[in-house]
Amino acid sequence: MTTDDGRDTSDFEAYADLGATTGDAMEIAETSMDRVRELVPDETLGDRIRQKAVHATGDPEFQYLVRFSGADESEVVRAGARAVLDEQPVVTDITMVKSGITGRGHSCPVRKAIGNGAALAAETGMTRTAASVLELDRQGVYEGSVAVVGNAPTAALALADCIESGTRPAVVVATPVGFVKAAESRERVREVADEHGVPAITTVGRRGGSGVAAGLTNELVHVASDARDGDLPLDTDAPVASER
Amino acid sequence: MTTDDGRDTSDFEAYADLGATTGDAMEIAETSMDRVRELVPDETLGDRIRQKAVHATGDPEFQYLVRFSGADESEVVRAGARAVLDEQPVVTDITMVKSGITGRGHSCPVRKAIGNGAALAAETGMTRTAASVLELDRQGVYEGSVAVVGNAPTAALALADCIESGTRPAVVVATPVGFVKAAESRERVREVADEHGVPAITTVGRRGGSGVAAGLTNELVHVASDARDGDLPLDTDAPVASER
Repeated sequence: MTTDDGRDTSDFEAYADLGATTGDAMEIAETSMDRVRELVPDETLGDRIRQKAVHATGDPEFQYLVRFSGADESEVVRAGARAVLDEQPVVTDITMVKSGITGRGHSCPVRKAIGNGAALAAETGMTRTAASVLELDRQGVYEGSVAVVGNAPTAALALADCIESGTRPAVVVATPVGFVKAAESRERVREVADEHGVPAITTVGRRGGSGVAAGLTNELVHVASDARDGDLPLDTDAPVASER
Repeated sequence: MTTDDGRDTSDFEAYADLGATTGDAMEIAETSMDRVRELVPDETLGDRIRQKAVHATGDPEFQYLVRFSGADESEVVRAGARAVLDEQPVVTDITMVKSGITGRGHSCPVRKAIGNGAALAAETGMTRTAASVLELDRQGVYEGSVAVVGNAPTAALALADCIESGTRPAVVVATPVGFVKAAESRERVREVADEHGVPAITTVGRRGGSGVAAGLTNELVHVASDARDGDLPLDTDAPVASER
């Protein structure tokens, strides 16, 4: 077999060997997830998030860094999936996280905070990302949303203040990375999430980043897809044992 | 002091405390890099890449995972910086990596591979990302480029084949992530880079991802900026001791 421009397709065996075909781009991902499931328990909805954290980072240790706040861990995941089914907006801190949110399996609008709140930032000296979160919150954007912070600790701190002031995202995914306030910002998110009953998925320590935040959010989309297909009940009192 | 809509800016002290001001968005990043420099040596151009790997992931261990191929490590970094100064195209595998490439400090066109080569993928059954790399290579896009793979192992394998077939990127940054062929694909990139003298920055093992690839590429931009400012000589025989 040759391609349109005369190349022998046997040249491409190395890629085809991976088993992927166009139109089924999930196949490599599924094989990869099978290997992850050998490393991470596969019993609960929380496990699905832990599996995805490992899958997104390539690091089995990452399963131990995931935390659930504001509700028990399966309910946190259900709340996120319900928000996806309800087509609530997914609001990310920066462009890179937005780019990582899958376009499939949901009809949620996906928008980024960065680019908003320039006047507030100029007035106050706060970071552009923090100002962008406060500005979108002023517009009511975070209420009921899937609020995602993958990069900027100051965005996570701002989001925590918004929750403390009364805003109620449907779910928060916060894994900002770095050596300045990243760990502290997530701790603050966990505190306000627990205090106000806002479902939140975070990681402990400094590790995280855009890829982790996007991956965990995409797993909420995946759980929502399973629920839509009837494979998974999302009502709060559904037995955990039937989750997968 | 109050904002336009009457809020007291003292509410924002927590953010301003971080020392960042709009128009100087690098300040938090610099503080963060100062902390990284306490954890990673700061002597050579290779150290700058290792520092950035730690900064991008929040994990000090990442400094030990970086590898340089095709030339000695300082020359690999210099080659990447020269490509940036020469305004060569930065070509990423996926959109998320493209989104993570800084818009400042360079005039390189930045494009992504994904979205190209659909016919080839359909004909051969290879992944879309692998097909996209082969298609852009057929168009000559990778010759002299800054070739970046942050996500797809099959894209890295395809890029390695292109190098073996004669394509010479100015530098390769390859940190695809995952449990299917990620580690092997980087090993293959290292082999062809060493064999054909193509400067390449990779990581060993399975860990990596879009954030790492974008971060390391951005550090090449940063080195190029320092060279442009006269702070750093990029000619190959410059003494390493004068690099910072």
